[in-house]
Amino acid sequence: MRKSIATVSVSGSLTEKLEAVARAGFDAVEIFENDLLGCPLSPEQIRERAESLGLGIDLYQPFRDFEAVSPGRLADNLRRAEHKFRVMKRLGTDMMLVCSNVSPGAVDDDALAAEQLRLLAERAADHGIRIAYEALAWGRHVDTYLHAWRIVRMADHPNLGTCLDSFHILSRGSDPGGIEAIPGDKIFFLQLADAPLLAMDVLQWSRHYRCFPGQGGFDLAGLLAHVLRTGYAGPLSLEIFNDSFRQADTGRTAVDAMRSLIALEESVAQVLGTGSPLPRPVQPDGFAFAELATRDHKRLGRLLGALGFARTGQHETKPVELWEQGLARILIDRLHPESPTDTSLVAIGLESPDPALSAERAKALLSPVLPRHRAPGEAPLEAVAAPDGTELFFCDAGRPAWREDFDAVTPPVGHIGRIDHVALSHPWDQFDEAALFYRSVLGLRPHESVEVADPYGLLRSRAMSNAAGTLRLALNIAHVGARGLPGQHIALADDDIVATARRLRALPDDVLLPIPDNYYDDLRARFDLGEERHRELRELGLMYDRDDDGGGEFLHLYTVTVGRVFFEIVQRVGGYRGFGMANTPVRLAAQHASAPAAPAPDR
Amino acid sequence: MRKSIATVSVSGSLTEKLEAVARAGFDAVEIFENDLLGCPLSPEQIRERAESLGLGIDLYQPFRDFEAVSPGRLADNLRRAEHKFRVMKRLGTDMMLVCSNVSPGAVDDDALAAEQLRLLAERAADHGIRIAYEALAWGRHVDTYLHAWRIVRMADHPNLGTCLDSFHILSRGSDPGGIEAIPGDKIFFLQLADAPLLAMDVLQWSRHYRCFPGQGGFDLAGLLAHVLRTGYAGPLSLEIFNDSFRQADTGRTAVDAMRSLIALEESVAQVLGTGSPLPRPVQPDGFAFAELATRDHKRLGRLLGALGFARTGQHETKPVELWEQGLARILIDRLHPESPTDTSLVAIGLESPDPALSAERAKALLSPVLPRHRAPGEAPLEAVAAPDGTELFFCDAGRPAWREDFDAVTPPVGHIGRIDHVALSHPWDQFDEAALFYRSVLGLRPHESVEVADPYGLLRSRAMSNAAGTLRLALNIAHVGARGLPGQHIALADDDIVATARRLRALPDDVLLPIPDNYYDDLRARFDLGEERHRELRELGLMYDRDDDGGGEFLHLYTVTVGRVFFEIVQRVGGYRGFGMANTPVRLAAQHASAPAAPAPDR
Repeated sequence: MRKSIATVSVSGSLTEKLEAVARAGFDAVEIFENDLLGCPLSPEQIRERAESLGLGIDLYQPFRDFEAVSPGRLADNLRRAEHKFRVMKRLGTDMMLVCSNVSPGAVDDDALAAEQLRLLAERAADHGIRIAYEALAWGRHVDTYLHAWRIVRMADHPNLGTCLDSFHILSRGSDPGGIEAIPGDKIFFLQLADAPLLAMDVLQWSRHYRCFPGQGGFDLAGLLAHVLRTGYAGPLSLEIFNDSFRQADTGRTAVDAMRSLIALEESVAQVLGTGSPLPRPVQPDGFAFAELATRDHKRLGRLLGALGFARTGQHETKPVELWEQGLARILIDRLHPESPTDTSLVAIGLESPDPALSAERAKALLSPVLPRHRAPGEAPLEAVAAPDGTELFFCDAGRPAWREDFDAVTPPVGHIGRIDHVALSHPWDQFDEAALFYRSVLGLRPHESVEVADPYGLLRSRAMSNAAGTLRLALNIAHVGARGLPGQHIALADDDIVATARRLRALPDDVLLPIPDNYYDDLRARFDLGEERHRELRELGLMYDRDDDGGGEFLHLYTVTVGRVFFEIVQRVGGYRGFGMANTPVRLAAQHASAPAAPAPDR
Repeated sequence: MRKSIATVSVSGSLTEKLEAVARAGFDAVEIFENDLLGCPLSPEQIRERAESLGLGIDLYQPFRDFEAVSPGRLADNLRRAEHKFRVMKRLGTDMMLVCSNVSPGAVDDDALAAEQLRLLAERAADHGIRIAYEALAWGRHVDTYLHAWRIVRMADHPNLGTCLDSFHILSRGSDPGGIEAIPGDKIFFLQLADAPLLAMDVLQWSRHYRCFPGQGGFDLAGLLAHVLRTGYAGPLSLEIFNDSFRQADTGRTAVDAMRSLIALEESVAQVLGTGSPLPRPVQPDGFAFAELATRDHKRLGRLLGALGFARTGQHETKPVELWEQGLARILIDRLHPESPTDTSLVAIGLESPDPALSAERAKALLSPVLPRHRAPGEAPLEAVAAPDGTELFFCDAGRPAWREDFDAVTPPVGHIGRIDHVALSHPWDQFDEAALFYRSVLGLRPHESVEVADPYGLLRSRAMSNAAGTLRLALNIAHVGARGLPGQHIALADDDIVATARRLRALPDDVLLPIPDNYYDDLRARFDLGEERHRELRELGLMYDRDDDGGGEFLHLYTVTVGRVFFEIVQRVGGYRGFGMANTPVRLAAQHASAPAAPAPDR
C-alpha cells in the first residue's frame, strides 16, 4: 500500500522533513500549508525537491471554513480557493483537503453545504484538482464522517469525494463499520492517527496527543479493514499533531512513523485474513544474558561476587568477562579506566526459538541491524539496536552457543537462578516509540503505563512481557524535560530472598540500598503481616507487595548503584505478576538520599 | 493569615522541602505521606527539623477509603488508622485529612459513612487528634463539599470537621456560596489550588494541572471570602499537584507559592472590603528604556544606527552607551570581547507614576530587590529582578532623571518614536510563575495564552498589558524540554513603516529578516489588499495582519538577530491591539532558515 505522511507530523524545515521521510521509505507527503509558507523555496522548487527524492505530493491541506456560508462569504472563499489552486498547480498536487466548517457563522443546512461544495468542485475541475471533504470532530454542524459523506453524495460531482481521518471518526466514538457503505472511489483520501484514550476536549486531544498507529488505544486495523473492503486504493497517510514529535529528531520520528505503518499493514492483513507482509513475530522466551560496560570492572565484579555470582569465563578475543549464577548471566565489558562513559547496560541477550527469523522481522520493521565483527571461532549472533541504543542479541534458547566463546567453567548454583526482568531507561519523548518497537519487533504485550513520583519529577513506566510471562521488560521514562535518565536495572529471580538478604546484610561492605524505617511503619498499616514477619522484613531491609486480590506476594531488595546501573533481587510467590511499583517512590527517594553528593541521576 | 503548603507541592527530599518553604516565609506544612515514607529521618527528627525552622506541621495526609465500608473492612481500616495516629503523635501533628472513599466497594449510605467517621473521630480523640473529612471531586458517592458537610454534621463529633479544597469545589462547578452555611469552627482545614480551565477528566486535571492561586482560571478570592465569612481562622494551605513544580527548583517554587498567597490575601481583602495588606499596585505607563548587554557593541550600534538611532550619550562611570530615537531609548552595556555571554536583553526601565511605591510593592511580593552600586551623582533607581532574571527599573515617568548620568545630547527625531513592546523569553516550566509575577507585582492584565508552531516545537506566548494599553510585554515560553530559549525582542513603534522599510531595504547591508515569497502568495488569499498594496508589502518584506472585525491593521518587520536579540518595527493602524501572531510561525521558520549554521536558538 502507498504510504504517505503529512509534513506537520515531524519537526524541522520543509526540506529537512522531505529528506527524512524519503529516507524512511515513504512514497508521498501531504503538504501542510504552514510548512509551505515558512519555506524559502518556491512551490516549483519544492516540487522538484520532492520529485528528486522520489516523493509524490498527494495532498495539499488544510482549506478551512469554506462551505455552508452566506453568498458574500462564498465569493470570498472561492477567491481564496483560486489562490490555493494556483499554488497547488505549481506544487504539482491535484488533491485539496477541505475540513468541515468550524466557524460560528456556518449555516446548518446540508443542501447549502452540498451546493457550495459542488461549486468548489466545479472550479477545481477546471484546474484538474479534486476536493476531499472531511468532517472534523469539532465541526460546527458536520462532525461525523457519515454526515460529510451524505453531503458529498448530495453534491454529486466527480471531483468531490470524502477524506476519512481515523482520529475524527474514533475520537467521537463513531462506528467505523459504516465506512463500508461508501463506494471506495468516493473515498479520496485516508488519514491515519492513533491516540491514547483520554477523557478530554476533543480539539486539544487532537492537537497535542495524536500518535502513530499502534501507539495509542484506537483499533486502527479494524478501521482500515473497513476502508479496504470498499476498494479504496489510495495512500495510507499519517497526520499526527504531537507535541513530542514536533521537536524530536526528524529522521528518528520518520522511521518510527514508517514502522507504525508496516506493523499496521500486518495487523490489517490478520483482520482481513490475507497474507502477512512480514516475517511472523517470534516472542523471546527469556534472557540469555545482560551486558554491562564499565570502567570499574573490579567494583562491579565485587558486587556480583557478593550476590553469589562467579566469574566463569573470559571472552577469547575481547575484554569481556562472563559472570554466572544458575541461568543468570551477566557480561562485563571492561572499558578503559579513563573512558568518559559511566557504568551502563549496553546489551541484552534474548533467547529466541528462531534467532534468524527474529532478526529478519526486526530488520523488516526498520530496526538498525548491527554489524558483527566476528573473530574466527566466535558464535554468530544476530543483533539489532533498540530505540534507547541497547543492543538486542537473538540467541538460541537453551543451548547458549555463544558461551563457548568464553571457555567458561560450570556456573555456581545459588538462590539466584535467572534474570527476572530488565528495566531500560528512555528520554521522555521516546515513550511511544519504545513501546511500539517492543510490541511490533519482539511481539511483546504492553501493560498499562503508570506514573511514579520521584522526588525530582514524575516518571512513567510501562512493562512489556511475552505471553508466557517468562520475559519481562520495564520501560522507564524520565520526567518531561529532564536532562538525565533514570537508572537502568537488572532484576534477578531468587528462590529464597530471605536467606540471600540475611547473607548480604551480614557482609562488611554496604551492598544494599538502605530503606527508610518509615516505610516499615507504613507497611504495618498497609498489610497485616504479623509481628514476626514484619520484624524480619524490617531487619533485612526487604520490600514487600501483594496482589490486590491478596493472591501473589512479592519480596524485593535493591543493591547500591554503580554508574547508571543497580540490581534488584526479587522473589515472586504465588504467581505475583507485578513489579512492586507501590514501593517505587520510596526506592527512588532512598536512592536520591543515598547519593546526596552525586548529581541526581534524573535531574 | 497563617500560611501553609503541602509538601507534595514542591520538589526535592522532605528536608529540602522544609528548608525551602521556611525560607519563603511559610508558617506551616501539610506532610504528604509519601514524603514521610521516603525520608531517612524518623518522625521525631522531622518534627525537630520543622520546629527548628519555625514550621508547624498542620496536617498529615491523605488517609484514603476509610468510610462507608463493610464491618470487616472497617476493622482493617481502624487498624490502619491507629498506625497513622501513632506516626502523627511522633510527628507532633494533630489533624488528619480523610478523603471521601473512591473505591468501587464503597457503600452509598450516608448514615453508615457518618457512623463510621464518628467511630474514627472517637478513636482519634483518644490521641488528641482531629479528623478533617474532604469530598474528592471523584469520590465514589461523596463528591461535593456540601455532601461531605452533611455527613460530618450527621456524625456530630467534636473531633470531626470538614476540609475544603478549592479545586474539588470549583472543578465540579459547585457554588461556593454554600460554604457560608457551614459553621467556621467545623471547617477544620482549607486547601487552596487554582487550575487552568480545562475540559478533561477531573482526576487527571487535579493530578497534573493544579497551580498556585492566580495562575489558573478559578475565582479563589471569591471562594476564600465565603470561607472567611464563616469565621474560619485556620491556615490557608496550598496543595498543588503539578508536573512542572514537581521537578522545578524547590526554593524558587516555594517563593512563587508564597507570592500567590500574598496576592490572594490582597484580592480577598478587596472582595471583603477590608484593608489591603499590600502597597497598592502602580501600573507602569510605558518603557523608559531597554538595556542590552553585548560583547559586540559595534555590530549592535551599526544595527541601531541603520534603524535611525543615534548614540546620544555615554554613561559617566560605566561602559554603557545610550542610543535614542524620539522617546525610544536603548542602553548598550559593553561586555568584554571575550565574555562568554551572548548579546541579550538584561534590563527594562519602566516609567512609573510612583517608583518608590512600585518598588515597595515588588518587595512585598517577594521580588528580589537588586543592590544599586550608585556612583556619586548617579540617579537613584529602584530595581527588582523579574523571574527570567531581567532587571526591572522603576523610573520617573516623563522626566528621565537617569538620562543625566549619560550627559546626553538631544535625540534625533525619526519615524520610530518609542518602544511598542518587549518580548521576554522563559524556560517552559516558568510560564505560570512569570504570568503571576507581572500580574501581581506590576498589576498588568494577562491576555490569553496562545500556542505558536515553530519548526522545532510548539512555543507558548502570553501578552500582558496595562489598562491604558501603553505598556505591553510578551512572555514567550520555550517548548517543553527545550535546551535553549526563544529569542528576546524589542518592538519599536514606527509612524511610517513603509518609509522605514524602503530606506532599510535600500541599505547595502542586510539588516532585515528575509520573508519567504510563499507568505505573500498566501497573504493574497487571506486578505483582499489590492494589487498595488500587495506588491508594496512583498517588495518591502513587510508582514501584515488585520483585526478579525476588519478594524485595526498591523504592519511589521524584523531585523536580523544579534546573539539572542532582534528588533521588530511595528505600525499599528486604527487601534489594532494584537501582536501579529498569525505571522509568527512564518517569522520563526524564516529565522531558523536564515541561521542554518548556528544552533537553532530554541532547540
